[in-house]
Amino acid sequence: MIDGSVAAAVRESLDSQGAMHALGVVLTRVDDGFCELAMPFSTAAAQQHGYFHGGVIAALADSAGGYAANTKLMPLRECLTAEYKINLLAPAMGEELVARARVVRPGRSLVIVSVDVFVRTSGQEHHCALAQMTLFAIEARQRPTPRQ
Amino acid sequence: MIDGSVAAAVRESLDSQGAMHALGVVLTRVDDGFCELAMPFSTAAAQQHGYFHGGVIAALADSAGGYAANTKLMPLRECLTAEYKINLLAPAMGEELVARARVVRPGRSLVIVSVDVFVRTSGQEHHCALAQMTLFAIEARQRPTPRQ
Amino acid sequence: MIDGSVAAAVRESLDSQGAMHALGVVLTRVDDGFCELAMPFSTAAAQQHGYFHGGVIAALADSAGGYAANTKLMPLRECLTAEYKINLLAPAMGEELVARARVVRPGRSLVIVSVDVFVRTSGQEHHCALAQMTLFAIEARQRPTPRQ
Amino acid sequence: MIDGSVAAAVRESLDSQGAMHALGVVLTRVDDGFCELAMPFSTAAAQQHGYFHGGVIAALADSAGGYAANTKLMPLRECLTAEYKINLLAPAMGEELVARARVVRPGRSLVIVSVDVFVRTSGQEHHCALAQMTLFAIEARQRPTPRQ
Repeated sequence: MIDGSVAAAVRESLDSQGAMHALGVVLTRVDDGFCELAMPFSTAAAQQHGYFHGGVIAALADSAGGYAANTKLMPLRECLTAEYKINLLAPAMGEELVARARVVRPGRSLVIVSVDVFVRTSGQEHHCALAQMTLFAIEARQRPTPRQ
Repeated sequence: MIDGSVAAAVRESLDSQGAMHALGVVLTRVDDGFCELAMPFSTAAAQQHGYFHGGVIAALADSAGGYAANTKLMPLRECLTAEYKINLLAPAMGEELVARARVVRPGRSLVIVSVDVFVRTSGQEHHCALAQMTLFAIEARQRPTPRQ
Repeated sequence: MIDGSVAAAVRESLDSQGAMHALGVVLTRVDDGFCELAMPFSTAAAQQHGYFHGGVIAALADSAGGYAANTKLMPLRECLTAEYKINLLAPAMGEELVARARVVRPGRSLVIVSVDVFVRTSGQEHHCALAQMTLFAIEARQRPTPRQ
Repeated sequence: MIDGSVAAAVRESLDSQGAMHALGVVLTRVDDGFCELAMPFSTAAAQQHGYFHGGVIAALADSAGGYAANTKLMPLRECLTAEYKINLLAPAMGEELVARARVVRPGRSLVIVSVDVFVRTSGQEHHCALAQMTLFAIEARQRPTPRQ
C-alpha cells in the first residue's frame, strides 16, 4: 500500500492535465509501483474507422506509466518520460480503454515501466497494446514553471 | 511529386479522424514518402505544466508517419501502425507542433518511417521528439467496417 | 507441450547459427510460445569493463525471441526479426546469461514477443534486460538460399 | 574536429572490448558527435542462413552509438546504454557491415543517438538497419571496477 497523499497527488496531477481531461481519463487504481487509468470511447479518441486512435492509446499508456513511476518518487521527486516503445497488438474497438502500468526497475535516475492496455467491450477485456517506457527522475523543485 | 488524388485521400482521411480533429491538426504538406502535420497549442493538448503532452506529441507523430507510409500504398493499399518508439528530446512549450515524417524503407509488407517533431515558438523551431515506426500494409478492402 | 520435432528444429537451427555457436549459447528450454537460451561468460561476450556486452545481451534476447515465435510457426512457416527495443536494466556481471522469451501475440503476419534476460552469479539471478520484439512470419519456403 | 586524445580514448576502449575484438570490429572514423565502425563477415557474425546475425548488427550499432555519445562526454564523463530500438530493414548479406552513429541530442544526463547500419557487397552499400538509442551519462570515476 502507498501513502494516501501519493494517491491524492497523482489524482491532482491527472486532473490538471488538459489532454487527459479532454479524453475523460480517470484514475481507477494506484499502488506502490502501479497505476491504472481508464478512458471511455469518444469522438476525441477515435481514428478514421471508429477505433480508438493509436496515438490516444499511447497517450493513455504514457500517462499511466508516468504515474506508476511517480509512486516510487513522490513527493520529493517526480519524472519525465524520456522515451517509450509501443506495440499496437490489435485494432481497439470498444467502450473503454484500461491501461495498467507496472514499474519494472525503480532506478535512482531512470525508472523502467511496462504498460499493458486493454479495450473493454461487452464486459470482456482484450489486450490491445504493450509499451515499455524509460522515465527520468528529477527533483520536484526542478519542475519548470507552469505555463500561463 | 505525388498524384493529387493521394493528397486528397490523405486530407479526407485526416478530417475523419476524431482525435486529430479534436486537436486541430492540419495537413501542411504531403509528398512521395513524406507527410507534414501541424497542431496548435490548446488545453486539449497540454500536460500538467502547460507543455504539450508527450502522448499528444506521439499521437501527432503516429498520424504523420501513417500518412507518409500511405503515400507509398494508396489507393489500393493502406497501413496500420504496428509499433513505434519515440524519444521526447525536450519539454515542448510553444504555439504549435510540427511533425515531419519520412519513409525510410517502403517494404512490400512493412513500411519503416522516421518522424521528427518540432515545437514552434516566436518563429523558431526546436526539435522536441524523434520517432521510428513500423507500419503494416494491408489491402484497402481489408479495412474493417467503420464504427457508426 | 510442443511436438518434439519443433524442439529438434529449434535446436538444429540454433546449432547452425555461427554467432550463437561462437558465444557458446545453448537451448535450455522450449515450449509452446516460449524459449529459454543460456550463454556462459567469455571474452567474446565482454565489453571493456568485464561485463557482458550490451550488444551480446541483445543478440541473445533476439535469438530467444525468434525461437519463441517459431514455436508458433514451424514447420510450415518461420519468422524474421522486424525490430525490437531493449532496456538494459543493470550492468550484467556474472557467470551466465539466461534469456526467457514468451510470445505475447501470435498474429498471422506479426508475432509480438517479450524477452527477459537475467544474469546468474553465485546461484542468484538478476534481471538485467527487458526486450519487446516484432517478428514477421514468412513461408518456410520463402527462406533465402543459404550463403556458401 | 575533435581532440586527438578523444579519438585515442575511443580506439583504446574499443580494443578492450572482448566482444568487438572477437568480431573483428575496427574504428574507421570518429568526429564530434559521430562514430563509424566496420566489421568483416565471419562465422562468428552469422545467423543460420549465412547472413549477418541481427543481434550482431545490433551489437555493432550499440558500440558505434556509445562511442558517438562518448565524443560529447570524454574525458570527464562517459556513458552507459540505457536502451535502444532497432529496425532490421533488410537481410544483411555481404563482405562487411558499417555502422554510422550520430548524436541527435547531447543532453546533460541523456544522450540520444541515431545509428544507420549498411552492408557492403561488391563495392555497394545497402541500408540494413536503423537504430535509435538513449545513453545515460556518468562521471568517468563512477565506472565500476573492471572484472579480471
